[in-house]
Formats: sequence, structure tokens, C-alpha cells
Amino acid sequence: MRFKFSIFALLLQVAIIILFGIFVEYKTGSQSEILHPPRFAPFVVTVYTDSFLLSVFQDVHVMIFVGFGFLMTFLKKYGFSSVGINMLIAAFGLQWGTLMQGFWHMADGKIRVDINSMINADFSTATALISFGAVLGKTSPVQMLILTILEITIFACNEHLVTEIFQATDVGASMTIHAFGAYFGLAVSLVLYRPGLKNKHENEESTYHSDLFAMIGTLFLWIFWPSFNSAIAHDNRPKAIINTYCSLAASTVVTFALSSLVDQRGKFSMVLVQNATLAGGVAVGTCADLLNHPFAAMCIGAIAGIISVLGFHFLTPVLASKLNIHDTCGVHNLHGLPGVLGGIAGIVVTAIQRTNGALHTPGMQAAALGSTIGIALAGGALTGAILKLPFLGQASDKNCFDDSIYWEVPEEEKLHVVHSNNYDEQSRFEATM
Amino acid sequence: MRFKFSIFALLLQVAIIILFGIFVEYKTGSQSEILHPPRFAPFVVTVYTDSFLLSVFQDVHVMIFVGFGFLMTFLKKYGFSSVGINMLIAAFGLQWGTLMQGFWHMADGKIRVDINSMINADFSTATALISFGAVLGKTSPVQMLILTILEITIFACNEHLVTEIFQATDVGASMTIHAFGAYFGLAVSLVLYRPGLKNKHENEESTYHSDLFAMIGTLFLWIFWPSFNSAIAHDNRPKAIINTYCSLAASTVVTFALSSLVDQRGKFSMVLVQNATLAGGVAVGTCADLLNHPFAAMCIGAIAGIISVLGFHFLTPVLASKLNIHDTCGVHNLHGLPGVLGGIAGIVVTAIQRTNGALHTPGMQAAALGSTIGIALAGGALTGAILKLPFLGQASDKNCFDDSIYWEVPEEEKLHVVHSNNYDEQSRFEATM
Amino acid sequence: MRFKFSIFALLLQVAIIILFGIFVEYKTGSQSEILHPPRFAPFVVTVYTDSFLLSVFQDVHVMIFVGFGFLMTFLKKYGFSSVGINMLIAAFGLQWGTLMQGFWHMADGKIRVDINSMINADFSTATALISFGAVLGKTSPVQMLILTILEITIFACNEHLVTEIFQATDVGASMTIHAFGAYFGLAVSLVLYRPGLKNKHENEESTYHSDLFAMIGTLFLWIFWPSFNSAIAHDNRPKAIINTYCSLAASTVVTFALSSLVDQRGKFSMVLVQNATLAGGVAVGTCADLLNHPFAAMCIGAIAGIISVLGFHFLTPVLASKLNIHDTCGVHNLHGLPGVLGGIAGIVVTAIQRTNGALHTPGMQAAALGSTIGIALAGGALTGAILKLPFLGQASDKNCFDDSIYWEVPEEEKLHVVHSNNYDEQSRFEATM
Repeated sequence: MRFKFSIFALLLQVAIIILFGIFVEYKTGSQSEILHPPRFAPFVVTVYTDSFLLSVFQDVHVMIFVGFGFLMTFLKKYGFSSVGINMLIAAFGLQWGTLMQGFWHMADGKIRVDINSMINADFSTATALISFGAVLGKTSPVQMLILTILEITIFACNEHLVTEIFQATDVGASMTIHAFGAYFGLAVSLVLYRPGLKNKHENEESTYHSDLFAMIGTLFLWIFWPSFNSAIAHDNRPKAIINTYCSLAASTVVTFALSSLVDQRGKFSMVLVQNATLAGGVAVGTCADLLNHPFAAMCIGAIAGIISVLGFHFLTPVLASKLNIHDTCGVHNLHGLPGVLGGIAGIVVTAIQRTNGALHTPGMQAAALGSTIGIALAGGALTGAILKLPFLGQASDKNCFDDSIYWEVPEEEKLHVVHSNNYDEQSRFEATM
Repeated sequence: MRFKFSIFALLLQVAIIILFGIFVEYKTGSQSEILHPPRFAPFVVTVYTDSFLLSVFQDVHVMIFVGFGFLMTFLKKYGFSSVGINMLIAAFGLQWGTLMQGFWHMADGKIRVDINSMINADFSTATALISFGAVLGKTSPVQMLILTILEITIFACNEHLVTEIFQATDVGASMTIHAFGAYFGLAVSLVLYRPGLKNKHENEESTYHSDLFAMIGTLFLWIFWPSFNSAIAHDNRPKAIINTYCSLAASTVVTFALSSLVDQRGKFSMVLVQNATLAGGVAVGTCADLLNHPFAAMCIGAIAGIISVLGFHFLTPVLASKLNIHDTCGVHNLHGLPGVLGGIAGIVVTAIQRTNGALHTPGMQAAALGSTIGIALAGGALTGAILKLPFLGQASDKNCFDDSIYWEVPEEEKLHVVHSNNYDEQSRFEATM
Repeated sequence: MRFKFSIFALLLQVAIIILFGIFVEYKTGSQSEILHPPRFAPFVVTVYTDSFLLSVFQDVHVMIFVGFGFLMTFLKKYGFSSVGINMLIAAFGLQWGTLMQGFWHMADGKIRVDINSMINADFSTATALISFGAVLGKTSPVQMLILTILEITIFACNEHLVTEIFQATDVGASMTIHAFGAYFGLAVSLVLYRPGLKNKHENEESTYHSDLFAMIGTLFLWIFWPSFNSAIAHDNRPKAIINTYCSLAASTVVTFALSSLVDQRGKFSMVLVQNATLAGGVAVGTCADLLNHPFAAMCIGAIAGIISVLGFHFLTPVLASKLNIHDTCGVHNLHGLPGVLGGIAGIVVTAIQRTNGALHTPGMQAAALGSTIGIALAGGALTGAILKLPFLGQASDKNCFDDSIYWEVPEEEKLHVVHSNNYDEQSRFEATM
């Protein structure tokens, strides 16, 4: 992969720099940042926007790079790739996302960037990172760069369709990011299906410390989800924050309860704690700023926890064995099902609140959910077909879920021998020779 | 524990959702967020509050979930429980705390929640997490849920007593959270005393990497403590931030100095660096917004570092051997003694500043400190007695400090064997057979 | 070291408390926080400043304590010292930095502190932490305290020279912090050169998990760098944020590409991913708020990634073998070369923009860069000579890169034996005896 990856990545970066040179400018002037002209004087709002947005941007940035990156480090021999390739995808993707989202909102032939567009670019990378979870351990870095290009491009089109054409609401992106990323990734995984991995690969398991590293990712995602869901909620920011907080708390308690319930010995499972606890954040996304009662957010979170746990326990094995869809991180249970639940909650809430104003209608919400899943599946299948092109190269089944094929890995064997010099058994050992 | 825990946790979550449905509403309208009516126009202050409070809330959230969670991962075989059950307690506790604190401040029979009440709910969970540290490794998840319910309920009553009845100041909660949580936990630990653990349990020790995981917790607590201590300091926010910063810096340098001094070979101890460095944040809490000189904050921090190190070195072993109080994480030295120091500092500072205004008096501060410790000890003893009820079940002494009783734990033995195939000694090994 | 370190550290802390008592006061009154008097009413700006600055301060605080601390944990046996001594240096250094920077800006014989001065104090510690990276594993805690005192003192003088005398711009401190810290550290390393370490020390390597711990540091530095580079950028804050974001993204993609390209088997290197990905943040620092096109920031980031990777791959081995400069963390490639690149970019940008206003001139920028490197090298050489004084003591070559000389380290040998009781091979093992 020496030249293939390097030259491809360098060419992409050069192309992006040229495109930025041609199209991208700073958004200037305070008028661009006025959010509430009727209620506030402009200068006050500028202040608000700058300070609030930087804080929210940094929170979202932590979720993308630390949250997603460490969440995937649970595999015993795939930590470098999880956190490293996650960083590569995100750093490349946010540049590509700036362009793809920007092309839909150009003025005078220019894309104007500000902190708001940085938040949106970070959001766009989340789709590729979710799909990365579905194919984790089974793809090469070159394949992931191609997937990132295609998925973010298609995401930006679907996002435009959902928000501009359907005028649907999806403030925390349950549909446009979570469900989209999950179903896109599942379609890719289906097309790239490897019969040789049908039986559990020996590397596809965690160690004690890899599970703790993964909890770093889980917790930073969990903690900053209120910022994520409120980032683009203009008028109802505090409501979106409170609802996300309530939903996550409920899904966490429910996840622990069901994790114990579905296990024969009643033990908790780290896979469930790492993932299903977050389902509440996904599912409350679409209507985080619309709900009128905190307990409604808790109900959504509790249901999300239930379906996520049941999905991991019952559905994932079936998908793999019957439908040939191998989902390494279980993104279907964390992002797919809860994302669909979020979309349905959005339909219900807009139906209930139809009377007042009716900017968003249940019909359009349903169209948004349907189009998102359809475009994700079709886009993922297309992307999978492209990734299968033979000249791209792929690791053999045997080398899956193993960093050492793409990374220089410390020779811990040596380390072990050095350490062993102090071990009692070592001396006893040498005595046997 | 399969059904006992699951059904109890589900029932609690359902009950909470119902209570939220009946009592909890969003706090709406900008007037609720006006903090400084005399000085600022309302709309400006709304801006300030929203943006500032979200930032502070997210910082406190990191402390509760990452800070407390990882701080307790130092035990070699108890990392899943430390970070996992910490998450469960916090996610459940913040819902319960919203209700318990809210019942003292209802209007028209409703609890109105906003970002401010979320910060306070997070705060209330800290008491249960501190007590968790005292009994870490010796209790079951069911016991911890019961402890959380009881402790947060009693905490909310004591907080009301301290702030409303005594009109005492405790902006960073040295007394109401830190001392309360510590003495509550110590009383529970005393009642649950297990003679079988008198001699050090073989699992009650750290490994090299578990100590590094614990430093993640330490550092995020240390870093965000200025936000914690200033979260509810209205007029003197910058002062509370600066004083906390100064106090923590001083306690850190003093901790390193004393850690080396009390060790016979002059070596640093990770236990002390993980814990005593934080004592300055605890101790400066009560008067963080009242001190008039940064060097006073430094003195408080330095003294806190000294008593915390001496507590770990001399007092904890005595408590365990003479008083049958086994304190797994040494919360008495991090939260108990420095919390009392903070309470005393509050008495001294209010005595010195008695002339100007006299909203807070040294007598009332002393009453607040005394009531807090008394209520914590009584509440903890009562809670311990309830947790001892036989049908709750408890791990045997042998299974203490071991995740595998409550968690599915990766089978690293297998991993080890797989790895060993590459080791030099393995080949030599096989040669001997 | 028992008494030497303890008494020295305690004396320093006492001295600092006394100096704070004499010189340091809170900055009070809103007028101190007015940043934009012509455009905004004072009270608005106070709001802006407080809320924005606390958020930025906490971000920078994470970089200093978690970012720098964990970045250096990559060595297999030096994690306690990396994250622990990093914390000691930073906690001591921020107090010393408050004084040293404050002495240059006294009013009425007093140093007035606010959140702004806390950010600057945190910045000042970064120089000592960068130099710590150059000598990591080879110095004692006493030596590091002395280095911190001297380096921060000299840094404050150079900073005054650069910003006040030369009136040079260096908003993200490419020159005054990064290049300064790197060349200071390299000079110390040269003077402290140990021929016994010429051949690679057996402890000077990573393990799989130590490399993952280091990624925690990398990512938190990467994520919060926009806050770092914009912290003191008054009028052009959003621009500084956007440019840092773009530069880091470009340097990350380029680092992955070149990491694969320079490796014979095309594999990625964790050393490069941990470090060179950050070079874009360093290099864009000087002119982050001056650039007029995002693509210019990307070009700077891409070039920084290239020189950083090439530095690690080709230059570091030469420095060690030919010039006797052993640079443990490769700070020359992360902070030195990209810092100089940042200085040169500042010269070019001010030359191009010379016409408008001309507050900063290319000549003065060049003088700032030259003086910074010269003062850093001279100061580092002097500091190295002082650290060599025999009574300070130093670890023997054999004990370098090993925590156990300064820290109580868990006896994992014992742990290993306990664990082994469960291993298959252990039983087979015992069968052989």
C-alpha cells in the first residue's frame, strides 16, 4: 500500500487545497451571525453566537475525534486503526464536508465558512465514522478514503433534500447522520461480505484494557451529546439540551437493567454499556427541540435503550448469519434502529403539534426518513461495489482485525521476554532447560 | 442478580418517568435567567447565562462521568465496575436529584428545570459517587442504587437546611457535597464492615496501566474544578475561578513534596498524586468566591495537600485497623478532611468579613458544617443498615474487588496463550515438553 | 532524593505564596475587560469576555495537563513520570509564570490577575513541558523544577522583547512558545548528553497500550488547538479558529500519506501520527489571525506535516548520532521546525500585507524569530550547565526511561504469577517441573 495510499491521499489533499483556494472564503461581518434579529440588537447576538458556538464546536470536535475514535478501540488488536484511521477519516472528511455542504449554499460563487460551517463539517464526518464502525477491521485505508468521499457527497445531497426540499426538522440528525451512516455502512458491509469471516475471527474480541479504552469514547460521546443535539437548535437551545440529558439518562439505566436481564447469569456486558447507553442521544435527536415535556424525552430514551439492547442481543447475530451483513461495532443497534426511532418520534411529534404553525408536517418527516434510508442503502451498495474493485486491494481474511498489516506495532514479544527476567516462573522456567 | 437488579432498576426508571410526567416542566421565559437585574439589561444577561451555563454544565458533566469514573479505575480487576457503575449511579442519580432538589423549590406544584438545575442535579450525584469510593469493590449494583436513592434524598434535605435555613455559603460545596459524601460513605462502610477483608485483599492493588487510567480521572477533575466551584457563584465568578486555580496548583506541588517526604526511599506514590493533588479544589470550595487575596487560596490549597497526604499515610490504616472503617479509595482524605477544612475556612473568612453586610455569619457556617457531618454520619449508618438486609445479597469476601462477579470479562487467558505462540520462550517452552 | 526534592519543592511553594501575598491582586472592575470599546458598550463586552474566556481557558487547561501529559506516555515504563511530572511542572509553572509575566505588566506595584492572565500562565508552562519532552527519561524531578524556573523566567523576558519591543505578532505563539521550548530543550539535552545512551536504551520504546494512552494526549491537543491559537486573538478570533482547524486537517492527511511513504513496507507509524499531525497547529500559530484565505492555512499545515515527518525520519537520528542531541519525544520535529516555519510564515504574511497599517513589519517579525531561537539556545545551554551541577544528582544511564527510580510501581510480577494460575500453559508448565 506504500505508494497507492500515499499518492492517493496526497492528491486528494492537493485537490482540496485547490478547491478551497477557488471557492472558500471567510464569512465576515457581524450581520452573518445575527440569529434573532427581531428580539435582540445585532451586536449582542454576535457576542452570543461567537462565544456559544466556539464552546459547542469544541464539544462536537471532542465527540468526533475522541468519542468515535476511542469507542472503536474495544478490539484487542485494532486500537491503532480505530483511533488513527478515525482521525484520518475525520480530518479528511471535514475538509470534504466543508466543500460538499458549501456547494449547496454558495453565494456569488463562494462558500463562506464560519464556526457554524465547521460544526456542520464535523457533523458530516460522523456519517463516515459510523459506517467505519460497520466495516471496522475489514477494509483498507485507501478504501476508507474512497468511502469518505462518496458517503459525505451523498450525505450532503440527502441533507439538502431533507432540510430544503422536504423542509423536515432533524435538529440532532437522528435521520440524516445516524440512520444514514448506519444503513450506508450496512449496505457496504453486505456488498463486501467475506464468507471466510462467518465464524468468529480470533481477533474479533476485546481485552480488559481495550474495553476500558472504549469507555473513554463512550463517555465523551455521552457527555457532549447535549451540545451535539443543540448545536443548530436556534430558538430552543435549552430545551434541546435538557431533553438530550433526560433521554440519555433514561437509556443508560434501562441499558444496565436489560443488559443484566438478557444475560443468562445476569451479568452486565461491556458491549451494551459502551453502546446502548448512547441510544437515547441518537433517538431524541430529531425532536430534541420540539418536545414539550421532559418525560417524553425520557420515554424516547428508555425505548431506545430497549431496542438497542435487544438489537445487539438478538438481531446482530441474525443479520450476520442469515443476511450476510457483518456489523463489527453493531452500528445498526446504536445508530440505525435508534435513528429510525428518532425519525418516527419526529413524525409523531409533528403530527401532535400540527396545529401551531405547521412548518414541519408529519408527511414530510416520513418522506425524510424514507428517503434517508433509501438513499443510504443505495449509496452504500454503490460504494461497496466500488470498494470491491480488485486494484484497491484488501487484507486477507486472516489479517482482518489486526493493526499489524497497516501499522508498525511495538514488538511486545521482546518486551515480554525482558519483563520475564524478573518473574518467579521465569527462573523456575530456566531451571527446566 | 439477574432479575433482582433488572426489575428493580426498571421499576425505578418507570417511577421516575411518571414523577417527571407529573411534576417536571421546562423553565421558560427569559425572566427566569436574569441574574443581575440592577446592572444589566435583561436580554444581555440571558445571553450570558445560556452561553456560560452550557459551557460550565459540560465541564461539570465531564467531572462526574469521566472524572469520578476513571479516578476509581486504579484497582487491577475492578475497572469495569468503577467506570460502569459510576455511570449507572450518575445517570440514575441525576434524575433522582432533579426531583429531590426540585421538591424544595416547587412553584405552582411544578418543578421547573433549566441548565442551572441540570448542574445542580449533576452536583447531587457527586455525593453518591464519593460514597461509592468508600465502599468500592464491596457492594452490589442493587445496593448502590439504594444507596443513591437514600443519599441524594438526605443530601437534598441537608442542602436545604444549610442554604435556606442557616443561610450559609458553600459555593463550591466543600461541606454539602464533599464532606457529606465522605462521612456518609464512611458510615456505610463501618456498618458493612467485613472482618474477612481485614488483611489486604489480593485484588486490592493497582497495575501499571490501571494507575494510568486513574490519572485520566484525576486530571479531568483537576482541570475542570474551576468550573465546578464557580458554577453557582453569581457575582464573583472570576474570583471563584482564580482562587480554585491557585488552590489546586499549591496543593499539587505540596502533594508531590510530601509524597516523597513520607516515603522511606523518597519515591512518589500514585495514590497520593491521583488524590491529594485534588484536595485544594475541595478545600477552597466553601469560600472560593469570598477570599480577597489569591495567596489565601494558595494557603488553603497547601494545607489541604498536607492533611490529605498525611491522612492517606497515617490515618487510613488506623481507621481500618482500629475503627473497622475500610475506605477503598481514601475518600476521607480527598473529600472528608479537605471538606472539613473548607468548612472551617468558611467560618474564618465570614468571621473576618463580618462587618460588610453579614449575610453569612460564622455561627451559621459552623452550624452548617456540624449539621452536614452529623446528618451524613446518621444517614450513612441508616443506609448501611438497610444495605445489610440479607435479601439484597452481597459478594463473598473472596469475590470482592473483582469485576467478573457482575460483568462478562474478556477471557484474557486465551488471549495470552494465542500471543504466546510468538514468544521466544514459548518455543523454548514447547521444547521442554 | 527524599529530602532534596521535598524541601526544595516546599521552599519554592512557600516562596511563591509569599510573593503572591506581596504582589498579586484580582483584577477588578469591568473596565479591565473591555476589548472593543469603539464597537460595543462596555457591559456587553464584559459578558463576552467572561463567558468566552472561561471556555477557552478550560480548553487550554486540558491541553496543558491532559494533552502534554498523555502525549508523553508512549514510553513503556515511563508513563507515571510523563503524566505525573508533567502535572508537577505545569502546576508549579503556572504559579511562577503568573509572577514572571506579571512583573512585566505591574500597575501600582501590583500584578493583577484575571482569566486572561491564567491563560497566559498556562501558556508559559507549555515552554517547560516542551523542553521536558526533549529530555524525557533522562532528568530528575529536582532538575525539572530548576529547568521550569529558569525557562519560564527567560521565556517571559523573550516574550516581552518580541511583543513589546519588536511589536511582533505571534498570536498562537509558534515562535515564543513552540520554537522557544524546543530549542531550549535541545540545548539542555546537548549539554546533558550521555554517551551511555548512544545505543538505543532498552526502555526507550513503546508498548501497544502505551501508544494508545499517548493518542489521548495527541487528540486533546489536536481538538483544542483552535482555542489555543485564538485565545488572545481579539478582533479576528473566528478567523484564527478557522485557520487552525484547516491547517491541522491538512497536516493530518499529509502526515498519514508521508508516514506510509517513508516506511519501507508502507506502514503507518504511531510516532508520526502522535506528533506530526499536530505540526499544522504549531506552524499556523504566528499568523492564524492574519491570513486572508483558508487555503493558505491549509498550505502551511501541509508543509508543516511534511517537514515534521521528514524531521522524525531523517533528522532526529542524525542529531543524535552526529550532534549528540538526543531528543526523546522528537520535540524538534513537532515544535522546533514547525515553529520556525510559523515564524517564517509570519514574515511572509506581514510582508505581503505591509501596506495596510503596518503595525507589524517583516523585519521585526524576523528579529523576533531570530531573538527567540538565540535566547532559547543560550538559555537552554546555561540551564543545562546548571542542571549538570553534581549535587543535583541524576539517574544512572541504566535507570533512564524507568519510572521505578522515582515512583513506587505496582509489582506486576506478583500480579502476573497470580494470573498465571489460570493459564493453560501454566498448568502445562508446572507439569514440566
